[in-house]
Amino acid sequence: MIPVQPTGVHDRPLRVVALGGGHGLQATLRALRLLTDDVTAVVTVADDGGSSGRMRRELGLLPPGDLRKALAALAAEDDGGQLWSTVFQHRFGGSGALAGHAVGNLLIAGLLEVLGDPVLALEEVARLLGVRGRVLPMCNEPLDIEAEVTGLDEDASAVRRIRGQVAVATTPGQVRRIRLYNGLTNGNGHPNGGRSAPPKACPQAVEAVLGADVVLLGPGSWFTSVLPHLLVPELHEALVSTTASKVVVLNLVPQPGETAGFSPERHLDVLCQHAPRLRVDAVVADVDSVPTPERLRTAAASLGAVAHLATITAGGRPDRHDPAALAVSLRDALRYHPQHDQRV
Amino acid sequence: MIPVQPTGVHDRPLRVVALGGGHGLQATLRALRLLTDDVTAVVTVADDGGSSGRMRRELGLLPPGDLRKALAALAAEDDGGQLWSTVFQHRFGGSGALAGHAVGNLLIAGLLEVLGDPVLALEEVARLLGVRGRVLPMCNEPLDIEAEVTGLDEDASAVRRIRGQVAVATTPGQVRRIRLYNGLTNGNGHPNGGRSAPPKACPQAVEAVLGADVVLLGPGSWFTSVLPHLLVPELHEALVSTTASKVVVLNLVPQPGETAGFSPERHLDVLCQHAPRLRVDAVVADVDSVPTPERLRTAAASLGAVAHLATITAGGRPDRHDPAALAVSLRDALRYHPQHDQRV
Repeated sequence: MIPVQPTGVHDRPLRVVALGGGHGLQATLRALRLLTDDVTAVVTVADDGGSSGRMRRELGLLPPGDLRKALAALAAEDDGGQLWSTVFQHRFGGSGALAGHAVGNLLIAGLLEVLGDPVLALEEVARLLGVRGRVLPMCNEPLDIEAEVTGLDEDASAVRRIRGQVAVATTPGQVRRIRLYNGLTNGNGHPNGGRSAPPKACPQAVEAVLGADVVLLGPGSWFTSVLPHLLVPELHEALVSTTASKVVVLNLVPQPGETAGFSPERHLDVLCQHAPRLRVDAVVADVDSVPTPERLRTAAASLGAVAHLATITAGGRPDRHDPAALAVSLRDALRYHPQHDQRV
Repeated sequence: MIPVQPTGVHDRPLRVVALGGGHGLQATLRALRLLTDDVTAVVTVADDGGSSGRMRRELGLLPPGDLRKALAALAAEDDGGQLWSTVFQHRFGGSGALAGHAVGNLLIAGLLEVLGDPVLALEEVARLLGVRGRVLPMCNEPLDIEAEVTGLDEDASAVRRIRGQVAVATTPGQVRRIRLYNGLTNGNGHPNGGRSAPPKACPQAVEAVLGADVVLLGPGSWFTSVLPHLLVPELHEALVSTTASKVVVLNLVPQPGETAGFSPERHLDVLCQHAPRLRVDAVVADVDSVPTPERLRTAAASLGAVAHLATITAGGRPDRHDPAALAVSLRDALRYHPQHDQRV
């Protein structure tokens, strides 16, 4: 573990909350476990693709895939943790009804049905995998993402509403803004014209953000895994009002689809657009992914943040974060902030 | 626990192996856990119906359902064991691709695919459920049952071959004799005219039978859960040659289909027909399920056994064994056998 233990100010490990989903959140969690034992992952629940999407449609449950990935990233490194993590991530093959389903998704679904409470269900899985830390859903109900997208029509400024995580993530148009809908009450692809009740945050996720020393947002699919956290009102308020240091970790490469052609600073712009009151302390980015560092520094400064550029990719894989390098970069970024000066 | 601990002869609990499948084996295991901590369940792997049958056909794995039931029956009684046992037995509802699949079947399948070795996979599940004892498959590969059945044609003596556990268990004809086929090499419903290699026993199951103090056979679907154990050559030999006391537990009611109209003594007759060299020490039956006790005693004696009749049903449920009553009856039956005189 990279030495980041408290040195007197506090007698507990650094308390970090990471918000995201998918592979981006996995990368953050793998880095954070090198820094502290007290990590809480807060995970998006708007996935509607793959194994998760099928289970969500069939059983009306939280899409389990992103939760599963976060749990696997925090699984114990001993034989038991690694075995169960492997089994969890294992997907059935073939061409039958089970093909493509991840075993962990099925088990999480079973626990969700038996226990009813997602937080309790995830605690049981965490115990099985020997997870250090905690994995929470952003909300206790499945959500749907709807995006305003331009560039899909001859009239380039015409705005279309595209619904569903997969559709938004792969749109050939340009995503302008997203909204969240309760995926249960507004199911069947018929959003309620924006009049539906706003999604309710998982209370434990709100508490975690309010009680954190550090909150991380990103990396990950910007519109479908990162920004959704800002669209849950209670979570938004908690992010705005928490005394935690707030760190945004930018993506290594623009995602084909939702952020094709997006510059690093454009990522910060849309973040600001979706949460104008959010102040950020640090923006961490890979130096090779930032063509114009000055522009990024300016965009970061407009959020109140210092930009930290370093090499954080895995050797030979410009599209993958290296956990140790990301951990070092996060530690360096936090050093600038007085409240953690003596702790990281 | 009903006091059956060793009293000086040995310094270990009574070592019991129960062979069977389905609900019958579950009943035995629930009784045995009241008698000893050292129970090994040896489970049939010829199921081709329901969730197990679908998974077996789709993934080419051991049918997990009977293994799951045995594991659940031996699960720890603490909160963790009971929660996981409940989750394991939970079946997805609805009408989609997952409907009817038991969560435990899916998890066992995942472990089978990841670990490759059924014995290791079941050990992991046993650890998760806090199982006292052990659950082993009869064979490490799925098997197919084929039955010779009469009474299906106008010529009542015409013999038809019926293949598959479900087909045999529900045949309106009379099952005369069964055979086992390797379910992988002779799949697709085309038995190889009996020329296929005989099924290979799970080595640990053979060892368990040879090292047991007591071996139990039944209750359960006679042709499809109980007798198959006698048709695996190495297991058959182990059952014939073990020094363990051998106890046959008869069913409470004839099963519609495979043993419709079968008397208790007829059950023993077909057992003898499938394993002429097998000697049995005790036959345990519910007193209300035996219309002609004298005939049963005679049939038992022809196997070398003493018949023990007692009330072993659950109050008000003539079709269900009461674990405590069955445990007492088993203990009483074992009292007759000198090698366990001082231990039960």
